[in-house]
Amino acid sequence: MVFEQSKDNADNALLALYAINAVTLIIKMFWVTTLTSKTRISKKVYANTEDAKISKGKVVLNDPDVERVRRAHLNDLENIPSFLIVSFLYILTNPSYGLAFILFWGFTLARIAHTVVYAVRPKPQPARAISFGVGLAITFYMSVRVLRHFW
Amino acid sequence: MVFEQSKDNADNALLALYAINAVTLIIKMFWVTTLTSKTRISKKVYANTEDAKISKGKVVLNDPDVERVRRAHLNDLENIPSFLIVSFLYILTNPSYGLAFILFWGFTLARIAHTVVYAVRPKPQPARAISFGVGLAITFYMSVRVLRHFW
Amino acid sequence: MVFEQSKDNADNALLALYAINAVTLIIKMFWVTTLTSKTRISKKVYANTEDAKISKGKVVLNDPDVERVRRAHLNDLENIPSFLIVSFLYILTNPSYGLAFILFWGFTLARIAHTVVYAVRPKPQPARAISFGVGLAITFYMSVRVLRHFW
Repeated sequence: MVFEQSKDNADNALLALYAINAVTLIIKMFWVTTLTSKTRISKKVYANTEDAKISKGKVVLNDPDVERVRRAHLNDLENIPSFLIVSFLYILTNPSYGLAFILFWGFTLARIAHTVVYAVRPKPQPARAISFGVGLAITFYMSVRVLRHFW
Repeated sequence: MVFEQSKDNADNALLALYAINAVTLIIKMFWVTTLTSKTRISKKVYANTEDAKISKGKVVLNDPDVERVRRAHLNDLENIPSFLIVSFLYILTNPSYGLAFILFWGFTLARIAHTVVYAVRPKPQPARAISFGVGLAITFYMSVRVLRHFW
Repeated sequence: MVFEQSKDNADNALLALYAINAVTLIIKMFWVTTLTSKTRISKKVYANTEDAKISKGKVVLNDPDVERVRRAHLNDLENIPSFLIVSFLYILTNPSYGLAFILFWGFTLARIAHTVVYAVRPKPQPARAISFGVGLAITFYMSVRVLRHFW
């Protein structure tokens, strides 16, 4: 199997949809990275002695605010790379553009909401459970479609 | 480089093999997600105050059973996305279908075994070391093949 | 969208560049895995009772040397899979080979440096901040290029 050079074609609508969502999700993850740094700096709590030294802070490994942001980040790592693989395979199954559009943006918006209610402005449950569940349901639906197409 | 529309062709055997293994591994990871939730609910130990509140449980960050499942999950994140990238590049090297079949399903079964002996029914070593090592060896072998093909 | 069989072609220069960097980064991550094991074995501190038993060590969950390597590994997981997706999309935007070469190897070398100054021979800041920042800046630049191409 070799990738082939060719002019752009209609397929690029799905590929472009994939690319834009993938990059949006990755920039969203960078945003969580900056949230961790901001929380560490504002509370002067660091994980490494060399960071505490340069910032005149303390080494604290269990600050609840920092740990909350780190859990939000880990939840991203558990969900977003999986989505990026499954949704790439999904566009190879020739789905309708409209459905792919709803699924991809549905996932992306659900993950942005997840970050907001988990790490930016913690909200009572079930806010986080819903945003997490929507993302998981979309990935699971696409997984089943991919399985059925390629089996 | 542009993806091109075409009829299905013989290559799809390798792509289908890849897609089915990728989705199986991703569903396996979701299974670990549900294991974490089940363990938290059965022991009523949560990481977030809002979860403890709605479930009338406690905030506990070092429950040994929950931490074991979380380590199994983190080990997945350290191994499965790497495999999904390397194995995709591997099918671009025109390997034989038979060998790719053994390598891909070998990895997938090894990772399922890893989850079972680590998080579902903890077993004495070297059960986990073997399942982990088989997965790592397969990814490493394919990495070398990809390097030799593209160098 | 279907992948098509064809002879190799000029595009493969970018694909080869991608493949070699991807595999180098993944082997670099395996190296961090072995660092964790080596640190655990040399200090006889394990996360699991079955590991401590077979190695006649102790269960310790907060050893500072092990936790440092684990943070370096987690930082890899936060940055390398994102790069592997964005840089794949980036080669679909028909960039110049020279620029792609600088960006890809720049990222790879920055992440190797990050591992060295974080986990192998801890160095005072800003060594780690610079290596982390270079990798992030490269991924962010490519993210913007991908967005502009596909929008």
